[in-house]
Amino acid sequence: MPFTMSQASLSVFEIGLNALSVVLDKAAGFTAAKKVDPAVLLGWRLAPNMFALVRQVQVACDHAKNGAARLAGAEPPKFQDNEASLDQLKERIEKTVVYLKTLDAKAIDASSDREITFPLGQGKGQMKGADYLNHFVLPNFYFHLTAAYAIVRHCGVEIGKRDFLGAIPIKRS
Amino acid sequence: MPFTMSQASLSVFEIGLNALSVVLDKAAGFTAAKKVDPAVLLGWRLAPNMFALVRQVQVACDHAKNGAARLAGAEPPKFQDNEASLDQLKERIEKTVVYLKTLDAKAIDASSDREITFPLGQGKGQMKGADYLNHFVLPNFYFHLTAAYAIVRHCGVEIGKRDFLGAIPIKRS
Repeated sequence: MPFTMSQASLSVFEIGLNALSVVLDKAAGFTAAKKVDPAVLLGWRLAPNMFALVRQVQVACDHAKNGAARLAGAEPPKFQDNEASLDQLKERIEKTVVYLKTLDAKAIDASSDREITFPLGQGKGQMKGADYLNHFVLPNFYFHLTAAYAIVRHCGVEIGKRDFLGAIPIKRS
Repeated sequence: MPFTMSQASLSVFEIGLNALSVVLDKAAGFTAAKKVDPAVLLGWRLAPNMFALVRQVQVACDHAKNGAARLAGAEPPKFQDNEASLDQLKERIEKTVVYLKTLDAKAIDASSDREITFPLGQGKGQMKGADYLNHFVLPNFYFHLTAAYAIVRHCGVEIGKRDFLGAIPIKRS
């Protein structure tokens, strides 16, 4: 097993996003059982000036989609940010995972030394491919994935660390 | 610039932990200015059954220390979990960063195919080195780093995404 950029991006995003989709399923089960309006969870925030759950999920998807696309030398598609339900957020995740599968893994593997230019705030950021993955895409992806998970757990949904990690290739004994 | 396991671990942990140390500095400035007992922040949680800030910082350090050590084939030192102040948490971080610098980067780079066995709950987990880094060490590290950051931000400390990312190698324009 070599260590490659495609493996450190595509498989990481796919496992993390699929885990988030299961977390949203559990959130849906919780709101149904407790007769809580799902909009309460969708609008919940960890701090007044942090994103609500809907935006955390959208942005986690976008860091995966845009990061992997730029490393592959592809133009990332723009997804409309119009999700208003847990099911629609799950569709956003599914659409992202399907898109990730279309990317050229070999192009991503060859991108470590390439200069990547990307939108950043009102301007642009530029980093070598390996740095972009290690120090921008992955920390941002995990930031929003963790924030989404923490909002759901804060609201009382019974989830644990294994729900965050998802279907990872591990032997437990 | 090649893509290596040492770079995807050591430099990621060092930048992330040093960023967390600055976040704790800002937390200390906040508690002093607002006359808030720092113990309130140290004991704050995102959910009743999630770790408090003190433990989030300790565990973030330990995933970096233990993960990198196991990839390098070294026995990770055990740190006592006795921090009771923001300054002591900063020392824990510093001690972790100093330890990371003692590890053999080439041994980490050569570990992608090696089976890594590690404590997991009451039992053990086993993964190939590359999988261990991509799907266990990094997600766990970022989970606790993000949780620590989110607790501090939730409590009202003025921090933003750049404080989370830290001193990353980026050109902004």
